[in-house]
Amino acid sequence: CLIAQQAKDHASLDTFYHIFAAALVFFMQAGFAMLCAGSVRAKNAKNIMLKNLLDACGAALGFYALGWGFAYGGQDADKTTFIGDYDFFLHANVDGHHAFFFQFAFAATAATIVAGTIAERCSMVAYLCYSTILTAFTYPIVAHAIWSKSGFLSAFNNDPLFGSGVVDFAGSGVVHLTGGVSALLAALVLGPRMGRFYDDKGEVLNPPKEMPGHSTALQMLGTFILWTGWYGFNPGSTLGISYDGAAEVASLSAVTTTIAAASGCVTAMATRYFASDPLARQYDLTAAMNGALGGLVGITAGCSVVQPWAAVPIGAIAGLVYLGASNLLIKLRIDDTVDAVPVHMANGIWGLIAVGLFCDPELKNAAYGSKHGGLFYGEGTLLGAECVCILFIVGWVTVVMGPFFMMLRKLGWFRVSIEDELVGLDVSKHGGSAYELAENKDSQKQAYSDFIKNADDNAL
Amino acid sequence: CLIAQQAKDHASLDTFYHIFAAALVFFMQAGFAMLCAGSVRAKNAKNIMLKNLLDACGAALGFYALGWGFAYGGQDADKTTFIGDYDFFLHANVDGHHAFFFQFAFAATAATIVAGTIAERCSMVAYLCYSTILTAFTYPIVAHAIWSKSGFLSAFNNDPLFGSGVVDFAGSGVVHLTGGVSALLAALVLGPRMGRFYDDKGEVLNPPKEMPGHSTALQMLGTFILWTGWYGFNPGSTLGISYDGAAEVASLSAVTTTIAAASGCVTAMATRYFASDPLARQYDLTAAMNGALGGLVGITAGCSVVQPWAAVPIGAIAGLVYLGASNLLIKLRIDDTVDAVPVHMANGIWGLIAVGLFCDPELKNAAYGSKHGGLFYGEGTLLGAECVCILFIVGWVTVVMGPFFMMLRKLGWFRVSIEDELVGLDVSKHGGSAYELAENKDSQKQAYSDFIKNADDNAL
Amino acid sequence: CLIAQQAKDHASLDTFYHIFAAALVFFMQAGFAMLCAGSVRAKNAKNIMLKNLLDACGAALGFYALGWGFAYGGQDADKTTFIGDYDFFLHANVDGHHAFFFQFAFAATAATIVAGTIAERCSMVAYLCYSTILTAFTYPIVAHAIWSKSGFLSAFNNDPLFGSGVVDFAGSGVVHLTGGVSALLAALVLGPRMGRFYDDKGEVLNPPKEMPGHSTALQMLGTFILWTGWYGFNPGSTLGISYDGAAEVASLSAVTTTIAAASGCVTAMATRYFASDPLARQYDLTAAMNGALGGLVGITAGCSVVQPWAAVPIGAIAGLVYLGASNLLIKLRIDDTVDAVPVHMANGIWGLIAVGLFCDPELKNAAYGSKHGGLFYGEGTLLGAECVCILFIVGWVTVVMGPFFMMLRKLGWFRVSIEDELVGLDVSKHGGSAYELAENKDSQKQAYSDFIKNADDNAL
Repeated sequence: CLIAQQAKDHASLDTFYHIFAAALVFFMQAGFAMLCAGSVRAKNAKNIMLKNLLDACGAALGFYALGWGFAYGGQDADKTTFIGDYDFFLHANVDGHHAFFFQFAFAATAATIVAGTIAERCSMVAYLCYSTILTAFTYPIVAHAIWSKSGFLSAFNNDPLFGSGVVDFAGSGVVHLTGGVSALLAALVLGPRMGRFYDDKGEVLNPPKEMPGHSTALQMLGTFILWTGWYGFNPGSTLGISYDGAAEVASLSAVTTTIAAASGCVTAMATRYFASDPLARQYDLTAAMNGALGGLVGITAGCSVVQPWAAVPIGAIAGLVYLGASNLLIKLRIDDTVDAVPVHMANGIWGLIAVGLFCDPELKNAAYGSKHGGLFYGEGTLLGAECVCILFIVGWVTVVMGPFFMMLRKLGWFRVSIEDELVGLDVSKHGGSAYELAENKDSQKQAYSDFIKNADDNAL
Repeated sequence: CLIAQQAKDHASLDTFYHIFAAALVFFMQAGFAMLCAGSVRAKNAKNIMLKNLLDACGAALGFYALGWGFAYGGQDADKTTFIGDYDFFLHANVDGHHAFFFQFAFAATAATIVAGTIAERCSMVAYLCYSTILTAFTYPIVAHAIWSKSGFLSAFNNDPLFGSGVVDFAGSGVVHLTGGVSALLAALVLGPRMGRFYDDKGEVLNPPKEMPGHSTALQMLGTFILWTGWYGFNPGSTLGISYDGAAEVASLSAVTTTIAAASGCVTAMATRYFASDPLARQYDLTAAMNGALGGLVGITAGCSVVQPWAAVPIGAIAGLVYLGASNLLIKLRIDDTVDAVPVHMANGIWGLIAVGLFCDPELKNAAYGSKHGGLFYGEGTLLGAECVCILFIVGWVTVVMGPFFMMLRKLGWFRVSIEDELVGLDVSKHGGSAYELAENKDSQKQAYSDFIKNADDNAL
Repeated sequence: CLIAQQAKDHASLDTFYHIFAAALVFFMQAGFAMLCAGSVRAKNAKNIMLKNLLDACGAALGFYALGWGFAYGGQDADKTTFIGDYDFFLHANVDGHHAFFFQFAFAATAATIVAGTIAERCSMVAYLCYSTILTAFTYPIVAHAIWSKSGFLSAFNNDPLFGSGVVDFAGSGVVHLTGGVSALLAALVLGPRMGRFYDDKGEVLNPPKEMPGHSTALQMLGTFILWTGWYGFNPGSTLGISYDGAAEVASLSAVTTTIAAASGCVTAMATRYFASDPLARQYDLTAAMNGALGGLVGITAGCSVVQPWAAVPIGAIAGLVYLGASNLLIKLRIDDTVDAVPVHMANGIWGLIAVGLFCDPELKNAAYGSKHGGLFYGEGTLLGAECVCILFIVGWVTVVMGPFFMMLRKLGWFRVSIEDELVGLDVSKHGGSAYELAENKDSQKQAYSDFIKNADDNAL
């Protein structure tokens, strides 16, 4: 009786933990919306925020109807399947509603990563089509492969790949790489914003035209919200706090997450500072913010299996990976409005590799129940598995989303018209600008004091 | 001994759950402040935010002194009372401080709903009077009737209305309808903003003058914060997570909340899109945001007793209810600055009716300990009880707040002066504009590079 | 076996509680960033936000490397030490990673308090030096003295000061006074902003020039985020929820926190209102927001040991303390850009004194395991201990930070150049303004309707 009660108590506590973590992860939607809004020009602010809101809604409906079933339906550690086939529309509710709630928030994150990259030029219809496909089908297959017990890369399968399976604790690969590859493909197919890399006549602009975002305050708010939300994302991925060792794993994850973010931020900003012309050195906020986010993405796969000290180099390298990828994109004239590809795709890859390098066998045992170390602990198997995971995600997403984006382009649905892009999407598609600040305050103040003065005079 | 310890452990866990949920619900104050601020013209931004801050403070003090005692003091499931009469100033602390903390956050929500509707013209004094009355008296009576064990509509009374009592799990009625009816009454008594429906000579403007808010970014931020906070509001209304079945009820609530918000958002935006002139179709952010909020209000009463699939139509209809009510208000020339009446009052009513339609007897048994189904499950009793609840709330709030608002108008306290309204409340009442962005950046940049250049020249 | 399991369950629950509270406290970084950003002029917005981000990062790295070890390393209630000497780089992980996570968030709070005071003129290098020293050394010594079991002021030592030790539950002294004294020292050494108190020729300006912040919306957002975060700060300082009585202590803390914030807000705003010229009365948002924050700081030391009623006067006096200190600073021509000294230092002191006045012996017994009352309960010992604590913190911080700031000034590292200050730090140090809102919307709208019209004409 007491033992039965204890099992119930564990279930209560774990459900609560899921709700807490999922609410924090959902709050990241606000972070993405603010970060993206601040990163675009004022004339497209409404457009990008609406996309952020709608992909949260699309994820809720699409993942409820199909995605959850494809990802986790009919899990069985004794067999391997490519796709789940059960619990659509939550009709069977196998794992409890809290599990769905947490996983929905992850799916929504994957979808929203793309929004920023293709901001300021992607049409609303294309965006809705794309984000529904991603959350209802593309992402669930990845989640199934790596996180479902039946996944062919899953560490939770009874016969895991290379004996260990893939370690991607909170989704550097499943969430960020999936979203990031989609973003890169979309940017390639969609092309750059007008005037960014080419002038009116199609000549290459050298240097490319900077198109700075319209509000650093919104960007910073978004960055802090995302960082905060990551404390649901990473520690929450224990999927419970009551089972033996879960609490230690969760709190280690919180610490490595913190350190990697800090390390990435400092490294990216300092490198950008010292790498630039000594006469024109700037403390670049974009580098600092994206460095922190890069560090967060980079630690996400390994947060539970690396020592706190390892979070320092993982974050630092993430900051450099971000800078390098960002520069490379510009050289290749691929236009990523918010640098989501460097942050999420490049550091998604780095995060998986970092596990293969820094994974501590004892910590892996605590988190996954089997000992496998990274290269720096003298083992190479895990690194191999992580590389297979990278190849799978990049390949799968490319195979599904690449043709899909091509089709959208062929149909003429992908991109807004030249005029709409020039004038801005807020005026052309959303009824007007996001801001109405133009009231002349000085004349208003003057008018008011005149009025008061006249009233006083009249009163005399 | 172990059993005693288990009881203590349950109390610890439930207290923690209350604190978590209450903190999230309190955070909704930030959401309302941002949503309202973004929805008013820039010249009144400070005014509305101060009202939002002050009603949180007023709720804290008023609900502590009186409201809590009126609402929950001296509960007893064996008797029926109209008003609580115990535990004022928390002197007896009957249910634990965590219970007060959670309920205070709800009372503050009810109060803040009104702020937006009557923004840009209501005086500060009137607002403070009103919000104190609401949180200290009007709202507590409603909460008492429906949520106290002694309430005459309460499902927790031993002799509940129609054998079932009213199901209003997290307060579509208690919180949102109460706030929404107050907002409607205030808008009726206060009248529209100058120039909104009538010109200088009192002639009807056709069409009415649009008065768009000044910052969509603040509106979107507010919407996301509110949605996030709702995960404290709805799941938290289990008032505990350790008792048998609580965890399932809480996680179901999180899922239905999510789906209804998504469904409301998509429906409202799509309807607005397709219902408008094909040549001038816009993706309307206001419809999307308020549709999501309408869906959240609509699911609040029934989140724990309806199946996830039912959240789809409940949210969808909530989106339509919002649009219809919003159009109706404009036709009736009732000026609701932030559309709080359509969102909170109209969908508060819809939320209660939806319980009467979609309530699943098994789920109601899990959440309330007795089986009663909605009309679609072949039972009509519950629908009847929900309708009585609607009538009671509308009637009670009208009887108390209507005369109160009339009195404020008679005293000349309700509305700011014409000049203050014209010039804006921030300049006239709060010492200046909310923003000081007018620095000329281009000339600053020029001045700076001139300066640097001259310094270099001089150095030669 | 069951008992062993119960111990494990408690550890799980307490770890979760730490993660919850630490995430909320970390979120306060967003609050500080928004509050500070809104409080500076637009030309320095990027600069202050970057400082806020970097001090969170610096705190993570500095507190991980050294600070945690200095503060809590090798605690032992049987001896008294001045500084910890163990667990640097978390190599021993004595208290669990969750404990570090929570304490890091506190250290980051202490560091970030200073940012606002010296905003708009402090150099980035100086800021980074200062904030690293503070989180890695100065603050840890204070935390050690008062919160470590080995601290000479600690209530957790077996031989505590005056038999009671110092009661500073969540850190009115440890966090806010430490940060506030540092801020005051920095402001003294750094001097006021150009043009604030003196004109070009060094003549005193009478009255001083107002330099209002550029966005009240960001200030209000920051205030609400901070208030919300305080529900992690204060209730979280039980450092667990499972031990006997912890839940009651935590929920009492949530209630007193709420009431004091409300009381401080209302008192400060009303006093400012009635104290000003009757013909020019304003509802001052700054007073309201800082009054609330002052109330929060003021209740932080005593939140767990005072009755809810006592939170009313504690908050009210905090509001007055804020106003008085703010006026005093202006009289002394000490320039505090965001009024952090009045909020954090003055009310940090008041918070400690308030414990000495209002501490309820029964509540202290519940929270600390020994009965000592405040002056109003007829005992003076505790008040004495609190005063010793104030003297220690003010003295220690002055001794360490004072010479440090002087050295920074001597080296010429402390302050930006005159030109940079005049033109603003965003243009001179961060590559451009924080905002790009200057697009001419009216002409854009016109251009767009012209374009559409022409297109229609051509189509005919």
